[in-house]
Amino acid sequence: MSNSATPLHVGAILFDGFELLDLYGPLEIFSLLEPKPVIRLLSEKTGPVASHAGPVSLADLALTEPLPLDILLIPGGQGTRALVHNVRFLDQLLALFRRAKYVLSVCTGSALLAKAGLLDGKQATSNKMAFAWVTQQGPRVHWVPRARWVRDGNIFTSSGISAGTDMAVAVLDHLYGTAVAQQVCQRAEYLWHHVPQDDPFCSEALLQINRTGSLPDTEA
Amino acid sequence: MSNSATPLHVGAILFDGFELLDLYGPLEIFSLLEPKPVIRLLSEKTGPVASHAGPVSLADLALTEPLPLDILLIPGGQGTRALVHNVRFLDQLLALFRRAKYVLSVCTGSALLAKAGLLDGKQATSNKMAFAWVTQQGPRVHWVPRARWVRDGNIFTSSGISAGTDMAVAVLDHLYGTAVAQQVCQRAEYLWHHVPQDDPFCSEALLQINRTGSLPDTEA
Repeated sequence: MSNSATPLHVGAILFDGFELLDLYGPLEIFSLLEPKPVIRLLSEKTGPVASHAGPVSLADLALTEPLPLDILLIPGGQGTRALVHNVRFLDQLLALFRRAKYVLSVCTGSALLAKAGLLDGKQATSNKMAFAWVTQQGPRVHWVPRARWVRDGNIFTSSGISAGTDMAVAVLDHLYGTAVAQQVCQRAEYLWHHVPQDDPFCSEALLQINRTGSLPDTEA
Repeated sequence: MSNSATPLHVGAILFDGFELLDLYGPLEIFSLLEPKPVIRLLSEKTGPVASHAGPVSLADLALTEPLPLDILLIPGGQGTRALVHNVRFLDQLLALFRRAKYVLSVCTGSALLAKAGLLDGKQATSNKMAFAWVTQQGPRVHWVPRARWVRDGNIFTSSGISAGTDMAVAVLDHLYGTAVAQQVCQRAEYLWHHVPQDDPFCSEALLQINRTGSLPDTEA
């Protein structure tokens, strides 16, 4: 289905307090490619990592482990609030970033990329409810408030939670073409919201506040 | 957000080869309620359980563990093909079913309920690509081919993979009303496909074949 005999290698970062759908929406979409992708969960330490919702996932590789990396996926979640102060994590994120062909963040995951300086001078987006906090992590980023997702070169950043799944389909569309993206949607019975600029969750108030520099920070 | 001071107690079943989004789409939706729900992952044995895509989740309770259970969630996935022959699992599913206020299945999860006899005489649906196999597990079930999800009493069954997330929002709509369901969608930046009969993945061919009794079985 991917028009390639080589499976896609996907590495997704886990951290305490990650948001479930930020991670598993995109991984579901990628998993439906053929040949079946190799999906690894990476964390500071291997072993159990608790999501913000409670359920625990198992990291099978440390962030420092060398591995082929077509796609690096960074979810968001409450846990990002602590991670932006974790210098060792940000250094490891930088090293992973350099090894990955494509880098994707969902929701407040873009705050981690921004804090590591990896979005400077680039266009990016994030969760609407945490826009103030996220944008503070990257004052030199061109933040786009009205976007389901944004692509800048090999970096895709999405809006909140569910938007990551739409972005993942867009990544397949970019890598393999629309027919493959549509086949994956058919298998997932997924209704792809395919226009990145069509963002019903960006309010006029957020656009107005974004112009004046005072943004809300009400992430759950 | 749920108009209740008591947190919702959700138990979700894990098994080898479960489908990621079948599980984590609904759990994300429930997790955004306030007060924060108690979400437990149940399996035959506690410990690591591998999804069909590869990533491993951690079951924190055995299926036999007594626990308060407002919602029992049963995902689908390739693993259901073996589980329908696992009599001990089906017995334990029956016991959980009796203790739960609401029972939800996603995708081929309805095959497990059907095989345990729990859908006999009831309306239910399932994944379009596995419809033949699923319906064979429950010849006395009133299978509905064109449905994003189906509610029959306290049982909700959904179509394939992504449909489970729409069903989960419908469960909140049923339990707490539309305002709560919409607030959760806002927090998740989720575009709810809210009409259960509007099922773009049910083909005319499937409807025709369903009438004549010969159904496709092409689940990935």
